[in-house]
Amino acid sequence: MRSMSVRKSGKATEVVESVEEMRGRVAGLRSSLRTIGLVPTMGALHEGHLSLIRAARRECEVVVVSLFVNRPQFGPAEDYDMYPRTWEEDLGHCNSEQVDLVFSPPEKMIYPAGFSTWVDVERFSTVLEGAFRPDHFRGVSTIVTQLFNVVTPDCAYFGQKDYQQMLLIQTMVKDLHIPIEIRGCPIIRESDGLACSSRNRYLKGRDRQSAVVLYRVLQLAKQRIGDGCRDFGKICYEMKEMIETTPNCETEYVEIVSPETLQPVSPRDESVLAVVAVRVGSTRLIDNQRIHLG
Amino acid sequence: MRSMSVRKSGKATEVVESVEEMRGRVAGLRSSLRTIGLVPTMGALHEGHLSLIRAARRECEVVVVSLFVNRPQFGPAEDYDMYPRTWEEDLGHCNSEQVDLVFSPPEKMIYPAGFSTWVDVERFSTVLEGAFRPDHFRGVSTIVTQLFNVVTPDCAYFGQKDYQQMLLIQTMVKDLHIPIEIRGCPIIRESDGLACSSRNRYLKGRDRQSAVVLYRVLQLAKQRIGDGCRDFGKICYEMKEMIETTPNCETEYVEIVSPETLQPVSPRDESVLAVVAVRVGSTRLIDNQRIHLG
Repeated sequence: MRSMSVRKSGKATEVVESVEEMRGRVAGLRSSLRTIGLVPTMGALHEGHLSLIRAARRECEVVVVSLFVNRPQFGPAEDYDMYPRTWEEDLGHCNSEQVDLVFSPPEKMIYPAGFSTWVDVERFSTVLEGAFRPDHFRGVSTIVTQLFNVVTPDCAYFGQKDYQQMLLIQTMVKDLHIPIEIRGCPIIRESDGLACSSRNRYLKGRDRQSAVVLYRVLQLAKQRIGDGCRDFGKICYEMKEMIETTPNCETEYVEIVSPETLQPVSPRDESVLAVVAVRVGSTRLIDNQRIHLG
Repeated sequence: MRSMSVRKSGKATEVVESVEEMRGRVAGLRSSLRTIGLVPTMGALHEGHLSLIRAARRECEVVVVSLFVNRPQFGPAEDYDMYPRTWEEDLGHCNSEQVDLVFSPPEKMIYPAGFSTWVDVERFSTVLEGAFRPDHFRGVSTIVTQLFNVVTPDCAYFGQKDYQQMLLIQTMVKDLHIPIEIRGCPIIRESDGLACSSRNRYLKGRDRQSAVVLYRVLQLAKQRIGDGCRDFGKICYEMKEMIETTPNCETEYVEIVSPETLQPVSPRDESVLAVVAVRVGSTRLIDNQRIHLG
């Protein structure tokens, strides 16, 4: 076990690298009836992650942050190899935010030779992000299941930036009767509206400016719907047009869907979810906004 | 909650039908640090099940038996509708064996509308039983995951009669870091060698006699291997011949495989697993035997 230098106030974040040691720590916490909050991350922590950690810190006695870059959720042509690894910075953040434990297992402990068990939430795995990233969500639900089984938190925290992922985890927890509360936390944005994402680090030069278009088209959708427009196809068309006229931007998808099902909006829906995936140069970004129909 | 009349010695088995109530009971047991043993069943209890219950009774302070006929593990042409439901008898057995809790949830609590999360142990789902029963094991691993999450046992008990199922559950538990010990218990046989199975009830008239052929061919394999034969193809051929010359019997598969991988026997194997699936009339039976190469 490695440990950071002691914080000015309180104990330093401790780093646990083995499943067995984590189990031992959790057993001790459980026997003293302390509540555990888990923030699963792939590291490269930003303000979005910090907001999840702060929510956990408010609600739970013990806060665990997992740092694990989960290979199976990356497609073969995706950015697993170049995904930012910022270990020292991440640990510094955890320390500042009074995280109790960082769980950072080696890959071979999570996916040993012969590993062959996958959790699949069929309903949400093949639409939107799932359509563009086959097997992505299978990778997500499987690592989250493992983390849940090792850390056995009372609550786990997910960002609404990855809305589909949050919905998928909520569905998995409900379907499999996993005794954990899932908290979805609001999107954190830069001052110009760009949603915080580890992948924002890839944006160089003018692409950083272009990337604001994701936020701008969501604001456009909100505006149109606020003005009374219910022709979602027309709104999506306008959104796409705005993306395609932004330098270096290419639309992957723009949709307005039901927030509960990710299917076409139904007359029963009281709000809709506008979702967008855009390639800015070689960087793929997603964003979303829930909009009340009022 | 229903309860049986009080046993002469000790408390009657209590029946819990809701996930929420089961959770409450388990939380109480956990807070008093009592160990929990789970025996997952589809009811129609026989001596094989009773041996699992007795193993749990010896090792755990609290014994839970689940009774749930799990539709997704039956194929569309299989016997879900006619599967024996013997509720009163089952409860009598549980009471006699000093089972503390029977968990018997309604189907809509396990598979509500919109249910869509499946656990798949790819490595063992498509060979042998999996090849003849597509989706069978996906149904098994998914219900077992749910039962594990609701009952949170320390140990769970499975019969070696369903060897592939046991191996699959052990693999799932290891892969997903589920904090539960899996105990595989020996096959229990009738006096003539027929392995106990809920489906033996289907055997009428002379089919009951014919069914002993599963045991007889496994004994044949043991004999041949004991005599030094290592031509497993030849042994399987003899086994098939014996099955096909038995009235009303048809081979589904006869194989001699590695007990760890269910793949062809390797030079490293110190024992082999002879596995057999036979249709006796319209009844499908399976059996297996582990044979040391000595």
